[in-house]
Amino acid sequence: MHQRIGHRLRLLLLSNSRNPGGGWLDHAEGEIRDFLGAAGATPRAPLLFLPFAAVSMSFDAYTAMARQRFAKMGYALVGAHRAGPAAARAAGGFVAGGGNTFRLLHEMRRRGWLERVARELRRGRPYLGWSAGANLACPTIRTTNDMPVIEPASLAAMGLLGFQLNPHYTERTLPRHGGESRDQRIAEFHVLNPRLPVLGLREGSLLRLEGGRLELRLGPGARLFRAGRKPRDLKPGASLAGLR
Amino acid sequence: MHQRIGHRLRLLLLSNSRNPGGGWLDHAEGEIRDFLGAAGATPRAPLLFLPFAAVSMSFDAYTAMARQRFAKMGYALVGAHRAGPAAARAAGGFVAGGGNTFRLLHEMRRRGWLERVARELRRGRPYLGWSAGANLACPTIRTTNDMPVIEPASLAAMGLLGFQLNPHYTERTLPRHGGESRDQRIAEFHVLNPRLPVLGLREGSLLRLEGGRLELRLGPGARLFRAGRKPRDLKPGASLAGLR
Repeated sequence: MHQRIGHRLRLLLLSNSRNPGGGWLDHAEGEIRDFLGAAGATPRAPLLFLPFAAVSMSFDAYTAMARQRFAKMGYALVGAHRAGPAAARAAGGFVAGGGNTFRLLHEMRRRGWLERVARELRRGRPYLGWSAGANLACPTIRTTNDMPVIEPASLAAMGLLGFQLNPHYTERTLPRHGGESRDQRIAEFHVLNPRLPVLGLREGSLLRLEGGRLELRLGPGARLFRAGRKPRDLKPGASLAGLR
Repeated sequence: MHQRIGHRLRLLLLSNSRNPGGGWLDHAEGEIRDFLGAAGATPRAPLLFLPFAAVSMSFDAYTAMARQRFAKMGYALVGAHRAGPAAARAAGGFVAGGGNTFRLLHEMRRRGWLERVARELRRGRPYLGWSAGANLACPTIRTTNDMPVIEPASLAAMGLLGFQLNPHYTERTLPRHGGESRDQRIAEFHVLNPRLPVLGLREGSLLRLEGGRLELRLGPGARLFRAGRKPRDLKPGASLAGLR
């Protein structure tokens, strides 16, 4: 399961799409422009938007919303649900929106995009994902926070990273509520999956991978969990050298 | 998926095992004794304990904990992980402890208990489950709150009820946190599974099924969700006539 990170991979993985009181993707706009802009050729070919995490809104509506937001940043974008498989090769890059991770994975696999997109990413095409879209880059979606409202044939995801992300990470819990804390859930993950580190990405923060270099950027940072070790809080700029 | 509830089914399904500040199963002890006591023959043959939702503790440790707690109420109990398949027929009843629902279902199916226990329940043997153990009685575990730390071959569960439970239900959310509310998650479930009502069982409350009669008892009650309708708050004693 531990794949060596390809030096060609270019990923920007956000914990969330909206900070409290802020507009959609506003907190990360500078990072997104820097990441996609640096791609050189990228802005010329439209980005392929993967709207499949949407449940309460249609894929068309989600794509329209994303098209408008990315147009504001100067990027053209088309929806994968309306595109043929050749669109993966032609895409300037890929954008996977948040929503329900089980649905995203289910539709990505069922429609044949999962392998196709992963292949283009290994060739160096940039990938931007938030929340469910960030989970999709991991070996599996076993550290999602979502409800399993649909049943993918497998929980295996794109496997571009050798560790798991937990988006929307927080150590806070509801007072006088008996449900498990996020830390307890991740500890359970580690009992059954001891080899995979889990990076709990706090809201407002993101991970950028480029040239084999993994960087934690923006916001409050992350908490790194490894089986049998004490969790470690990391601030943006902290070394992620141990992660691959 | 809508099975008619058998008149023989005897279920006691708890949202949670411990109220804030209380001891383990203390809040429901009266209900448990009333339910298992009323079984007549039940206290004579040991109860079969299904410890498979445990992740951070061993099945032996979980069973020892349950054995001690049930002994205090006058019931003998043996762990299913140490018993042969004949134990299902001989059991005075079944107790499914909480923990991780994915693990519970995975082990129940893998070890051959899922069908065997369901069969005995259809014959009238009593079943007590809390949290993950309550999810197990439903058509699927698609309304669990747990992290999918392990991948069961299918999310289909015992299918004894024609609706879904969401244990630990609360409408509360963490302030300034972007994760979905429970109501949003259940709304997503209904987009993809419109025929199955979801009963959000609040902590402290339980559901009792006996003689074809479904009762909401104890604690603050539940919220009933149906696709396309406004959620409805129910107090203990409210009619559940529409549910089967």
